[in-house]
Amino acid sequence: MKLGIIFGGVSYEHEISIVSAIAMKDVINVQIEYIFLDENRDFYHIPTDTIKSKLFSSSEYKKCQKLLLQKDGFFTQAGFLSKPKKLEADVYLNMMHGGDGEDGVIASLLEFNNLDFIGPRKEACTVSFNKFLTKGYAHSVNVKTIDYKYFTKDDEILIEDFPVIIKPVRLGSSIGVSVVKSKEELEYALDVAFEFDDAIIIEPFVNGIKEYNLAACKIAGEFEFSIIEEPQKAEFLDFDKKYLDFARTSTALKADISKELEEKIKEKFKAIYNTQFEGALIRCDFFVKDDEVYLNEINPVPGSMANYLFSNFDEVIKKLSKSLPKTRKILINYEYVNKIQASKGK
Amino acid sequence: MKLGIIFGGVSYEHEISIVSAIAMKDVINVQIEYIFLDENRDFYHIPTDTIKSKLFSSSEYKKCQKLLLQKDGFFTQAGFLSKPKKLEADVYLNMMHGGDGEDGVIASLLEFNNLDFIGPRKEACTVSFNKFLTKGYAHSVNVKTIDYKYFTKDDEILIEDFPVIIKPVRLGSSIGVSVVKSKEELEYALDVAFEFDDAIIIEPFVNGIKEYNLAACKIAGEFEFSIIEEPQKAEFLDFDKKYLDFARTSTALKADISKELEEKIKEKFKAIYNTQFEGALIRCDFFVKDDEVYLNEINPVPGSMANYLFSNFDEVIKKLSKSLPKTRKILINYEYVNKIQASKGK
Repeated sequence: MKLGIIFGGVSYEHEISIVSAIAMKDVINVQIEYIFLDENRDFYHIPTDTIKSKLFSSSEYKKCQKLLLQKDGFFTQAGFLSKPKKLEADVYLNMMHGGDGEDGVIASLLEFNNLDFIGPRKEACTVSFNKFLTKGYAHSVNVKTIDYKYFTKDDEILIEDFPVIIKPVRLGSSIGVSVVKSKEELEYALDVAFEFDDAIIIEPFVNGIKEYNLAACKIAGEFEFSIIEEPQKAEFLDFDKKYLDFARTSTALKADISKELEEKIKEKFKAIYNTQFEGALIRCDFFVKDDEVYLNEINPVPGSMANYLFSNFDEVIKKLSKSLPKTRKILINYEYVNKIQASKGK
Repeated sequence: MKLGIIFGGVSYEHEISIVSAIAMKDVINVQIEYIFLDENRDFYHIPTDTIKSKLFSSSEYKKCQKLLLQKDGFFTQAGFLSKPKKLEADVYLNMMHGGDGEDGVIASLLEFNNLDFIGPRKEACTVSFNKFLTKGYAHSVNVKTIDYKYFTKDDEILIEDFPVIIKPVRLGSSIGVSVVKSKEELEYALDVAFEFDDAIIIEPFVNGIKEYNLAACKIAGEFEFSIIEEPQKAEFLDFDKKYLDFARTSTALKADISKELEEKIKEKFKAIYNTQFEGALIRCDFFVKDDEVYLNEINPVPGSMANYLFSNFDEVIKKLSKSLPKTRKILINYEYVNKIQASKGK
């Protein structure tokens, strides 16, 4: 199997996508073709044997072969005497975190151009990338979330009880997120959040709440679960901490929880995954309080694909690549246009 | 102003998009460039002076100039001696109903390629195209909807109370929708619905419920509302009836309702529109029962752009085209990659 890994993208998480993608070389045993999307929305074919993060920070990647995404594949550009050449890949893996990757853009581009890919489809992106929409979605599939208030830029924001946690609705990796302990800290935290997005949610900050992460995908109708991990955390994971997480390749430790709680978390995961997330390997982060499970967030393109949560990651990816949802074939006939023409006498 | 109208698309509503787009010639007083997306996902430039529905049913459109959507515009293909030429347009109007238009695909393609357009953005598409997600979204913005049950293809479906209305979650224009009056009719109606989608919702069918349609867009922060119409309907609008609606260009009659109810409906519309729908002119269809307003559905690309609900449609479109949401500029620097390189000594 040849796997095309798409990474980079116009996103606040552009850099962590690079680190995340490079980590795949060590955990998937297939031929990888790296496809980088740069800040100008140009695609480049990056040689697998020489890929390293410095290639991007130095702009050296611009010496690599440019690619165009067109029908049925990525193509080199035609030269004066050369025809466009198609990059060979059987299936693609979307590894762009944040914008372009988790917001539905690349899913739309790949679907439009008829390419098979591992990753969240358009709808799955929307309900996970936007934290406000995640709340509504979780409610629809009967999964609890922490109480919240939703504000847009021009709203009057009155908060009485502290501490709270403020989150821009559309950013991952804790970007723009602040824990606010008192009224005095509020204005600055709001400025920070609104710098990244025009809408935010504010939740009560629950100290000492237990957090558990679980990753999975559906393969031929059955869930392939990872272990459940209790992530190491400071007050909350800030960007620097999470960033280092994206390069993780060593296997994590299973959380020490009851069989019963484990099952409860898995049931909630299944409710979230539903049919929306088919084709994707996702990680859900849950809170547990008084034995009640709450969804914190859905990572539809998790850092380093959450490989460290699986003992058989290589196998899972290979099986998933053969169990991707098919696009429904829509037949276009002109029955109604013909009917109208007849009725109008045109 | 030159307006590029994008229509067609791989969609069960491909044909009605054609009719809808052609209707624009009579109601918008600008230079129009018609861009047709055919069933093979090829774009064609259709001359405005000769456009008619038969061009498409007869496949004659294939003689028109092919276009490629690339960075900053639609381009003709390079010939042996000719360079690609850009189609001039100041702003685009998404007029694809259903798949490709209302599901976020074209929004992603236009955003990716940096084109200004009137139409729903990705998130707005997801929460309106999928009726199940619409329910969750309406709940989040405090708008009531009719009770429902959600089923996917393999679920056991038990219905006790009839009549019910069965809807595939992802289709507009009443495609695949049935009113089921008794248990005996259920199986056939389910087969029909699941032929179009792998998920459905089932609602109680409320006979004689009042229905009201309202269209609007936000221009420079202010809502520009249409009149509220009480649509003519048989038991419910089937595809044929709705289809003819897409060619409507004569102004509709204002519903005879109290000022109070009018305000209530507008408030619900505003809650739905929120910031998600900025850039789009949408039509919301509401039910009213016992003075309570329920959202029935959101049409993010309404038939013939709901021009018949406005007395000043031409002006609204022109003003909206100058009040489109801007994409947030994301600066990519390599701060973290550099930090990691330093810490690893690489």
